[in-house]
Amino acid sequence: MKLVIDAYGGDNAPQAVIEGVCRAMREWGDFDVILTGDEQGILAELKKRENADMSRIRIIHAPEVISCDEQPTIAVKRKKNSSIVAAMNVMAAGEADCLISAGSTGAVLTGATLIVRRIPGVKRPALAPVIPTPGKPFLLLDCGANADCKPEYLQQFAIMGSAYMEGVMGISSPAVGLVSNGEEEAKGSELSKAAYALLKETDIDFKGNCEAREIFSGNYDVMVTDGFTGNVILKEAEGLADALFKMLKRELRSSFKTKIGAGLAKPAFKRVKKTMDYTEYGGAPLLGIKGGIIKAHGSSDAKAFVSAIRQARQYVTGGVTEKIAERIGALETSESND
Amino acid sequence: MKLVIDAYGGDNAPQAVIEGVCRAMREWGDFDVILTGDEQGILAELKKRENADMSRIRIIHAPEVISCDEQPTIAVKRKKNSSIVAAMNVMAAGEADCLISAGSTGAVLTGATLIVRRIPGVKRPALAPVIPTPGKPFLLLDCGANADCKPEYLQQFAIMGSAYMEGVMGISSPAVGLVSNGEEEAKGSELSKAAYALLKETDIDFKGNCEAREIFSGNYDVMVTDGFTGNVILKEAEGLADALFKMLKRELRSSFKTKIGAGLAKPAFKRVKKTMDYTEYGGAPLLGIKGGIIKAHGSSDAKAFVSAIRQARQYVTGGVTEKIAERIGALETSESND
Repeated sequence: MKLVIDAYGGDNAPQAVIEGVCRAMREWGDFDVILTGDEQGILAELKKRENADMSRIRIIHAPEVISCDEQPTIAVKRKKNSSIVAAMNVMAAGEADCLISAGSTGAVLTGATLIVRRIPGVKRPALAPVIPTPGKPFLLLDCGANADCKPEYLQQFAIMGSAYMEGVMGISSPAVGLVSNGEEEAKGSELSKAAYALLKETDIDFKGNCEAREIFSGNYDVMVTDGFTGNVILKEAEGLADALFKMLKRELRSSFKTKIGAGLAKPAFKRVKKTMDYTEYGGAPLLGIKGGIIKAHGSSDAKAFVSAIRQARQYVTGGVTEKIAERIGALETSESND
Repeated sequence: MKLVIDAYGGDNAPQAVIEGVCRAMREWGDFDVILTGDEQGILAELKKRENADMSRIRIIHAPEVISCDEQPTIAVKRKKNSSIVAAMNVMAAGEADCLISAGSTGAVLTGATLIVRRIPGVKRPALAPVIPTPGKPFLLLDCGANADCKPEYLQQFAIMGSAYMEGVMGISSPAVGLVSNGEEEAKGSELSKAAYALLKETDIDFKGNCEAREIFSGNYDVMVTDGFTGNVILKEAEGLADALFKMLKRELRSSFKTKIGAGLAKPAFKRVKKTMDYTEYGGAPLLGIKGGIIKAHGSSDAKAFVSAIRQARQYVTGGVTEKIAERIGALETSESND
């Protein structure tokens, strides 16, 4: 198995990337790595780490970097020698099974779509982060790849999300919910109501509309919505959890008694924070592309890269790309037979 | 000032409604009340409370009740003698300045639109709850009255929301944000991008796109979005806060040390819960209707009804209806002059 990793993507590159790669290689022996980025910089980081197994590492020199401020379509076209584009070229040439980048989300989406390309029949790829809940985590898609969606896209998202949760998380017939403004079938926007009808036609385990109050209930494995709403759900969760913890911290510091209490209760707070920590699950897969594409969080540390590599390995061994290709193909066939 | 109150709306009706009315009448002497619902039931509750000032109370006998399970349009048309419809009729006749109901949201929306009717020029009324944050609260609209919106609706929502925050909360030139999937002007769905352009043309204090991570930052007074997204934002906040507190509770109970800590830290938890308690702000106004309509939460207790009555009084004295009528009128005129 070959993984191609953008060594110059993310806030902590290349140190965190190389450290994560070295740790993951010590943990699992079943993959080789292609690193893209400035060769000297990568070599310098590898030399710092004594146990780096160079026999499993290949470096592709690509000294340019695409920043998050750049317009993705322009940057991907112009910076042919960037670490992201170089990694995408490796995927397009069929020389790796899965790609990991913590770089610009826009550049990853654009590069994957324009260079690696979609699985035949897939209308739109979807960015699909794994979201923790107090119960089991769920896959939310789309989370920003497509701000405006058609009902058919949402139907495909459900199929692709199910394939991912089966292949990577080992869940048989994942429970799929459709985000809506009420539980009843009649509730929703024009888009979500049309998507509801299409989802009922598929053979996934469609559980119907899910009101946003129930999103974090742990009752779902896959949650489907358009990229605008999905992005709002994801970012609101981050913002609200932050706001609540900050407020709690402020209040806990306000008296001697609550300070003592906070000290004693600290292990409980830590466990809650750990449960809600997205880095445990690696990055967000971009589903619907020929081969695995994992978009790691920009602020990923070495631990998050280890998680992303675990996830990439499971993506490949779980046959997610093949599952998606097969099921989207079957959907297309059944539709043309209708 | 006259307030008409649906005595049979909500989970705790009529007890909580009457208790709230009696408390509010003791606190403020500047309003009279019209109660709609089963007359005997209302009288029985009033009799239980010794200090009920009957000289300020009028009862309209309307023994039917519309439940939350009923299809709103049908129920409002058929149940002419329901507490909600009777209250709406009082408003339509110009016999009260503001209405409060904790009954079926759908029935309140339908009744207000069909019976009380919109302010001339208002394209769609918007349901606009006040959302607490660790900083100052903000008004979120629309929250479910219109699942599918046009850009012009969002422009009007911003104007109506600003008028409310000025009139009721005493904020001069409220800061208005537009929910989007990124801060930059170019980010958004087709709808939000078109709304952005229209919002720039108004003379409200438009702060541009707001990513969902910043919704609870306390930097905004009014947050504008379509009713589908607004409903998701509102319900997700409820669901996530619940999930986090439940998880924290579970973890705090897991050891003797954390249990002791939790006991000492309890006042801090209570203050956080109080800060995030929507009942402090009363109900959600339905903006754009001729006269004030306050939709109180279905689970409102007496305290929540007191808050809703405070809010209704401020709605009237703050001249919110007049402000909306004037500004929507000015917008219409400027548009027809373009």
